[in-house]
Amino acid sequence: MTGTLYGLGLGPGDPELLTLKAHRLISGAQVIAYPAPDTGESFARSIAAAFIPDTAREIPIVIPMRSERFPAQEVYDSAAEEIAAALEQGQDVVVLCEGDPFFYGSFMYLYARLAERFPTEVVPGVSSLGAVTAAAGRPLIARDEVLTVLPATLPEAELEAQIRKSNAVAIMKIGRHLAKVRALLEGLGLAERAVFVSHASLPEQNVRPLREAPETAPYFSMIILPGRDAHV
Amino acid sequence: MTGTLYGLGLGPGDPELLTLKAHRLISGAQVIAYPAPDTGESFARSIAAAFIPDTAREIPIVIPMRSERFPAQEVYDSAAEEIAAALEQGQDVVVLCEGDPFFYGSFMYLYARLAERFPTEVVPGVSSLGAVTAAAGRPLIARDEVLTVLPATLPEAELEAQIRKSNAVAIMKIGRHLAKVRALLEGLGLAERAVFVSHASLPEQNVRPLREAPETAPYFSMIILPGRDAHV
Repeated sequence: MTGTLYGLGLGPGDPELLTLKAHRLISGAQVIAYPAPDTGESFARSIAAAFIPDTAREIPIVIPMRSERFPAQEVYDSAAEEIAAALEQGQDVVVLCEGDPFFYGSFMYLYARLAERFPTEVVPGVSSLGAVTAAAGRPLIARDEVLTVLPATLPEAELEAQIRKSNAVAIMKIGRHLAKVRALLEGLGLAERAVFVSHASLPEQNVRPLREAPETAPYFSMIILPGRDAHV
Repeated sequence: MTGTLYGLGLGPGDPELLTLKAHRLISGAQVIAYPAPDTGESFARSIAAAFIPDTAREIPIVIPMRSERFPAQEVYDSAAEEIAAALEQGQDVVVLCEGDPFFYGSFMYLYARLAERFPTEVVPGVSSLGAVTAAAGRPLIARDEVLTVLPATLPEAELEAQIRKSNAVAIMKIGRHLAKVRALLEGLGLAERAVFVSHASLPEQNVRPLREAPETAPYFSMIILPGRDAHV
């Protein structure tokens, strides 16, 4: 009997936003894997830390931070082999995922390598989108509105075209693209409606009207333009 | 001292997908409000039922089902008054919301009436989007992709324009619009990539390639077109 691979969404950062299911699976885990930076703490592990059993074996998946976009495939090859070995021995393996596993998540790299070989279950989590709109106190979308989710990494012209045809917009991965996005929204006359949120649900959470956003933004920040039907 | 109004996301239906925070607030609740149909059980209440204390006072908000789109404002006026009376007496009031409160949720109607008068906290929940992609076993979106969330209620031409300029698409509220959406996706040559999911996370969950979808779909069903970068 092989073990089961679980991809667990942990939510946006507040440990109390774990689901009951994620909590149960972490509390009983034999093997726990998670993405980790070259140096410093794993954000995913920090969310779940209070619930990880002392007896669990941990597999940090160290992702070089040199590139935002295409983490080395060899890292995932190697992590997948280590996880596969545990699964083959009949141990369940829980992979901790920030937010929701299938919403811009790196879990897909392990899923692609393991889901056809082993029983696999994905447990959805609270996404950053829900956490940001809750923090902003602004309903995001209502009735027949269209929502577009955009990575701030896109070229300005593409961002503009996408924003123009949407009722509500969430721009993710703001980081070093803040100045570009702010200028674009000001140019479109939409800056007044926009809200900047970083570190949603964490103690350092920062919610501002876009015009009062800080000059530099962390990677995990978002700008939302709630739909007009979703006003309060 | 007035009480606090909580808008609690309950997730897509599986009670184990409640967050720890929603579980704590429901378990200790004095007053619990939730949307309910004219006849039959409240879906929101059914998700939380096992955790509702016997001592809690319940306020069902009966929404006439005649119209999908614009529930009578008087229903929310009246519910808001009943909730306000409890808050003024110093009782906390927990409002149960299917999915996430600010993602096409009816909680915004209460929020609009009460959030300026009383301390209010929105607790995000697992959205149907996360639950559907987990059920489908398909990462939805990756890297620099754009996601568009569309209500199936939109006219066909607008759906087509939106789908053409997106990398990944989630079409919500399928219900009686299934035939229209299916014909559209077939015409665009996208039907092969599309997955139909109804009742995600519930025992009656149904996941099918779009071409094998049932002839009639419940209101709570979704069609997703995962992005090409999010393949497995």
